[in-house]
Amino acid sequence: MNSPRKNDIPILLRAYAREVTDRVPVWYMRQAGRYLPEYNEIRSDLSFMELVQNVDQATAVSLQPLRRFGLDGVIFFSDILTPLHAAGIDLHFEEKRGPVITTIVEKASDLDRLRDFLPDRDCPYVGEIQKRIRQTLGTGSERAALLGFAGAPFTLASYLWEGGTSRRFERTKQILFGEPDFAHAVLERLVEITVAYLDFQLRSGAEAVQIFDSWAGILRPEHYEEFAGRYTGQIIEQLRRRHPNPVILFVGNSAHLLGEMVAQSPQVISLDWRVTPTEAARMIPTQIAIQGNLDPLVLYGAPERVTRETLRILEAWGKRPGYVFNLGHGIHPSTPIENVTAMLEAVRAFRPS
Amino acid sequence: MNSPRKNDIPILLRAYAREVTDRVPVWYMRQAGRYLPEYNEIRSDLSFMELVQNVDQATAVSLQPLRRFGLDGVIFFSDILTPLHAAGIDLHFEEKRGPVITTIVEKASDLDRLRDFLPDRDCPYVGEIQKRIRQTLGTGSERAALLGFAGAPFTLASYLWEGGTSRRFERTKQILFGEPDFAHAVLERLVEITVAYLDFQLRSGAEAVQIFDSWAGILRPEHYEEFAGRYTGQIIEQLRRRHPNPVILFVGNSAHLLGEMVAQSPQVISLDWRVTPTEAARMIPTQIAIQGNLDPLVLYGAPERVTRETLRILEAWGKRPGYVFNLGHGIHPSTPIENVTAMLEAVRAFRPS
Repeated sequence: MNSPRKNDIPILLRAYAREVTDRVPVWYMRQAGRYLPEYNEIRSDLSFMELVQNVDQATAVSLQPLRRFGLDGVIFFSDILTPLHAAGIDLHFEEKRGPVITTIVEKASDLDRLRDFLPDRDCPYVGEIQKRIRQTLGTGSERAALLGFAGAPFTLASYLWEGGTSRRFERTKQILFGEPDFAHAVLERLVEITVAYLDFQLRSGAEAVQIFDSWAGILRPEHYEEFAGRYTGQIIEQLRRRHPNPVILFVGNSAHLLGEMVAQSPQVISLDWRVTPTEAARMIPTQIAIQGNLDPLVLYGAPERVTRETLRILEAWGKRPGYVFNLGHGIHPSTPIENVTAMLEAVRAFRPS
Repeated sequence: MNSPRKNDIPILLRAYAREVTDRVPVWYMRQAGRYLPEYNEIRSDLSFMELVQNVDQATAVSLQPLRRFGLDGVIFFSDILTPLHAAGIDLHFEEKRGPVITTIVEKASDLDRLRDFLPDRDCPYVGEIQKRIRQTLGTGSERAALLGFAGAPFTLASYLWEGGTSRRFERTKQILFGEPDFAHAVLERLVEITVAYLDFQLRSGAEAVQIFDSWAGILRPEHYEEFAGRYTGQIIEQLRRRHPNPVILFVGNSAHLLGEMVAQSPQVISLDWRVTPTEAARMIPTQIAIQGNLDPLVLYGAPERVTRETLRILEAWGKRPGYVFNLGHGIHPSTPIENVTAMLEAVRAFRPS
């Protein structure tokens, strides 16, 4: 723990670069969220989109899990739909439904609703939040690293087409399989927006960025490649030309898509909870770091179960250079905090060597 | 097509027995359903559960897809929740929500709500519907075969715990990981019910039975084994001791569970649409027949897309002895019928050799 560091690079970034670390770094998706009472306190005065745009409060909320648990990564508080909102799409969040887009994109001409997206002009608050967080994190190899993120084109497009989250994505697949030219036009536009958005974040202090393709798991591999993977691949390639920072790829429900994810050459793959270590080791070459993948709903169980399942994952992956502990999906709102503590204690007690 | 048959066994059953057939047999999940105007006509006068229990009309509805399309299998019209309803669980169907169980099973003593289940006494209509369909199907190797079905214990338990379909199965996982003894008690009880129910169907004329574990794909492999696979495995084993008929295993969203499904030794595995032929060939030994696996939402696309995707699947699997064309999930209510026709034409035009 106290051995001298070669340099001052935070442990999370060293793991993403596949260096051997003396402990397993940890952060988890949606770590700033409704399972924290201090989050709900701030959120009670603001709507979701107000909070996203409020630099002081979004910064405070982003840092809450760090203050409480001392994690190795801080992901800035926002939503994957933020850049669409900033580019002119009308949306709000409803308590049970989640995001609601009132003017869905039904035909090619509806793409005009997405104005030319200049993140410095259209969502300066995102850059400001990242600068503030980064300043707070200080220096030294034991500090947390700042993570940016964006939604992947396929997932963003599904929101534009469905108007919100969907169970079966009927409208999305109707467009993919019935109007592929329109589908590709939307996806190409979203590549441009996402590259600009992530580039802005990396210029504003983010040290690594994660791309969330939350819904692409509804596609079989050849459809994923046709409508999702090729576009995330373009984003990863374009970012790599401009920035040395790692890009993390997360695809929800993606046990069947690992080969296609590897083909995009992200520096890190963040695994859904369904993937076994054996399968991941078979499919993911050692040049790619791995993040994951406890089922977040294990945290609804008994504390002994939480400890046992956390250890099972650590024993499988903890010794692999370039392994970061995380959940296999965002943490759920009613997660008991004592179970988060049990999970983190197990991660911290584990020694890779 | 007109070559003499060794015997009068229907082509579907010969394929399930892994015999070489001169064409690919076809049926598809939820083939008797809302995409058919003749179904909606009958359904407009009856609630869903009334239709399930109405021998005349349920028989008529089961036969509708055969009359219209001439398929190789007829699955009797019912729902996976029918045996729970027959065993005393109060449930009804709502238009958008699907099944609703008003008195959920929250603790071990709630299991008393499931009375001793004697299918001959508690759901005689199921046996009667099967007898009637079987009589209509006649004889000869070109006739359709009659399929029975049941829900798997894990999927049925999730309905008892959640009260309906769920997005994240939070309550289910809370019970699995927090109250495993209670979970196992419910699952064991559902094994008994399901064995009795499928045995009853096989005694009433069903020639093969499919077990639907619609929601087990939310589990990672070791949890699937702990809470789902071992119980479906028990059902398959107990049925095999009593009946020579094939048991087909379908697990929704199961690309990551193929190894565990194989371990249960079903005669047939019905694949979710996400699995590639390469992956299935790697994981499923040739002693197990394969059924599947077009994405049902491809049928929302353009007819050329439907033909192309159907052919892609046939080219990959059509030559494997023991292959049956099917969808990777139930057909959706708004599927255009001309796309079903395009799919079936492609299947019928395909020659395995």
